[in-house]
Amino acid sequence: MTDIPIPRSDWRPSGFVTLLTDFGLSDTYVGVMKGVLARHHPRARAVDLTHAVPPQDVRAAALHLASAWSWFPSGSVHVCVVDPGVGSGRRILVGEQAGHAFLAPDNGLLSGVLADSAPRYALDVEALGLGAVSRTFHGRDVFMPAAARLLRGRAPHELGPAVDDALRLEWPRPARDGSGWRARIVLADRFGNLRTCLTRAELAPERAQGWSAEVAGRALPVGGTYADVEPGQALTLVDSSGCWELAVRDGSARERLGLEPGAEVRFRPPGATT
Amino acid sequence: MTDIPIPRSDWRPSGFVTLLTDFGLSDTYVGVMKGVLARHHPRARAVDLTHAVPPQDVRAAALHLASAWSWFPSGSVHVCVVDPGVGSGRRILVGEQAGHAFLAPDNGLLSGVLADSAPRYALDVEALGLGAVSRTFHGRDVFMPAAARLLRGRAPHELGPAVDDALRLEWPRPARDGSGWRARIVLADRFGNLRTCLTRAELAPERAQGWSAEVAGRALPVGGTYADVEPGQALTLVDSSGCWELAVRDGSARERLGLEPGAEVRFRPPGATT
Amino acid sequence: MTDIPIPRSDWRPSGFVTLLTDFGLSDTYVGVMKGVLARHHPRARAVDLTHAVPPQDVRAAALHLASAWSWFPSGSVHVCVVDPGVGSGRRILVGEQAGHAFLAPDNGLLSGVLADSAPRYALDVEALGLGAVSRTFHGRDVFMPAAARLLRGRAPHELGPAVDDALRLEWPRPARDGSGWRARIVLADRFGNLRTCLTRAELAPERAQGWSAEVAGRALPVGGTYADVEPGQALTLVDSSGCWELAVRDGSARERLGLEPGAEVRFRPPGATT
Repeated sequence: MTDIPIPRSDWRPSGFVTLLTDFGLSDTYVGVMKGVLARHHPRARAVDLTHAVPPQDVRAAALHLASAWSWFPSGSVHVCVVDPGVGSGRRILVGEQAGHAFLAPDNGLLSGVLADSAPRYALDVEALGLGAVSRTFHGRDVFMPAAARLLRGRAPHELGPAVDDALRLEWPRPARDGSGWRARIVLADRFGNLRTCLTRAELAPERAQGWSAEVAGRALPVGGTYADVEPGQALTLVDSSGCWELAVRDGSARERLGLEPGAEVRFRPPGATT
Repeated sequence: MTDIPIPRSDWRPSGFVTLLTDFGLSDTYVGVMKGVLARHHPRARAVDLTHAVPPQDVRAAALHLASAWSWFPSGSVHVCVVDPGVGSGRRILVGEQAGHAFLAPDNGLLSGVLADSAPRYALDVEALGLGAVSRTFHGRDVFMPAAARLLRGRAPHELGPAVDDALRLEWPRPARDGSGWRARIVLADRFGNLRTCLTRAELAPERAQGWSAEVAGRALPVGGTYADVEPGQALTLVDSSGCWELAVRDGSARERLGLEPGAEVRFRPPGATT
Repeated sequence: MTDIPIPRSDWRPSGFVTLLTDFGLSDTYVGVMKGVLARHHPRARAVDLTHAVPPQDVRAAALHLASAWSWFPSGSVHVCVVDPGVGSGRRILVGEQAGHAFLAPDNGLLSGVLADSAPRYALDVEALGLGAVSRTFHGRDVFMPAAARLLRGRAPHELGPAVDDALRLEWPRPARDGSGWRARIVLADRFGNLRTCLTRAELAPERAQGWSAEVAGRALPVGGTYADVEPGQALTLVDSSGCWELAVRDGSARERLGLEPGAEVRFRPPGATT
């Protein structure tokens, strides 16, 4: 008699399912996914994270997911479908972290969520016993039926074998730069705020008095909130996700500074020479 | 004593209501419709199909509805408001198909859903006993209260008299073209995929080996999924709605091929001369 | 022993929460707010009014809210976050009107909802006993937890002290103009319909026979619905919010007339000289 190790799991479904895709809202793809969810689990509660990820931009999706998932109740299922490889042999991953479950293509989308040591499972699509599965819309044909299994209490590790070779994105990290930091802009939001990859873990706001963010030939002062500068002025501050961002009060830093994701910012302590 | 024939109906409401409009999401029209639904039937579950139908484009709405409705649970009410004739004498139709109910203006919107033989009823607005009804926003003032009646168990045939002269759109159909097919592009999606009116019923994918789609001076190969060609290359394949579409892997066929809905595509078997 | 006056309140929560923001749908801000709501009150039902308010346009938000809130069930909580002053010392108001509750920054957003005499309370954020509160995303960190208190039965007056100096926007009002009216365009909708601030209270449609709306060198006839004129023709009519609007049948008045919010319209009775 062999002991079969049962992975520890604190999976207790809350009934909430979040959706993160690049499907947009001008077609019926997202609505149809919710219809399939309703058929499989009528009491499920679907919540849109966003569907405006630029088509096939896995990195942007990973960043959005990383700053959003933990605000939901424990037991939520996060369904992420930015999936350039749909219909190819790419696997679908099931992940578990802090009582939340995740479904995403094996393309790095979960890189900002799952610790390197966290288990990942390769969804066993055959075992779901689905009928016809299209080769172009797995969000409808595979992800939602799989999410419904999780909602009915199946734990992530019950949906497929553990894998140790999941694809991980190189996650953007700041680098030391003398006594300061170099960081890249990773996201622009609707207001034109520019998020960098420098977090409060590297530079705590209470230690950033007198620092500045150098970019585009300018040095932006550190602030605590937008109202710390005059309307129209630029500053850098810790945003609601815990990252340092560049912002313009009552305006768009993206437009005012002419910057896009990818640009580099130098965070300099007081008195540092350029 | 006269026998009153009771139409057969397998109407059993599921509680789900889908919404398909051209109202967009920048105003509060859709939110207000959901508010009225909440007042009439608090436990109803509203799901957006899309609200980005081009203003008053009944044909696009009909195509979206046709590929989306059947993914919802039996007993769903599909409320469709693309309604250039609002406030005029145009009727509102109630339809039933396969256990689903439909509410739409009598302008052809249900043409892709209801079989020619399926019964249609003209909503008796008076009988709803509503208060003041605006002449410009029947989505709020008529459609949602009518949907609530269906949700409370009233069958479609109880909401008004049967009609046999409902307006039907000429539905796009492919035509034989020698040993191949001619078809028109009917929809472009967010990714720039171009759906044609040729379906797998006319050309089964397993019989399409070696066929090509001729359009814009090019011959696109048949594939099974996007990954069957190299990134940036165009192909034709059966999409998730069962129609042949033109696509570019990791790109936009709409932009790459310079095509819009209405353009004609020729599907040719192997060896056919142009 | 002192009598403590208990403000009268007919607050009985319905479980519905509406959301009105300028956050857009391309980021995860709105989704995260719903996640926080789900954590605090899993049975709450969130409904989007709109998230497409132009960034920091408090006036547009106030107009949207004013025409939408009363369509929801009594006991709804309306959460409005258009908040240029977030992180500054600005207060958050709790209002109550006709059995509905409102949460908004003290920047005039509730001007179209709360009567001048209606009580307003300044949210006591400390008393909510929240953990860390960001200085840039009070929608997530303060508004949703406060909404959850209301959903659990706490009345508006229990959330903070009454204030009598809430900021109120100067609300757009029409002015008499001889025997007619002058009014400004206040909102443009997705269809290009242009809402003015003249309401049916000032000019009842049944008394407007033969009147015209003079704007951009044209005199638009009064109608009852779009179908009262030929396709492509302009008219003025009472819209679904009770305001006189300028519209073009099957077209956009905004584009056709080249007008934007702010422009002035003169409503003239029959026979009036210009």
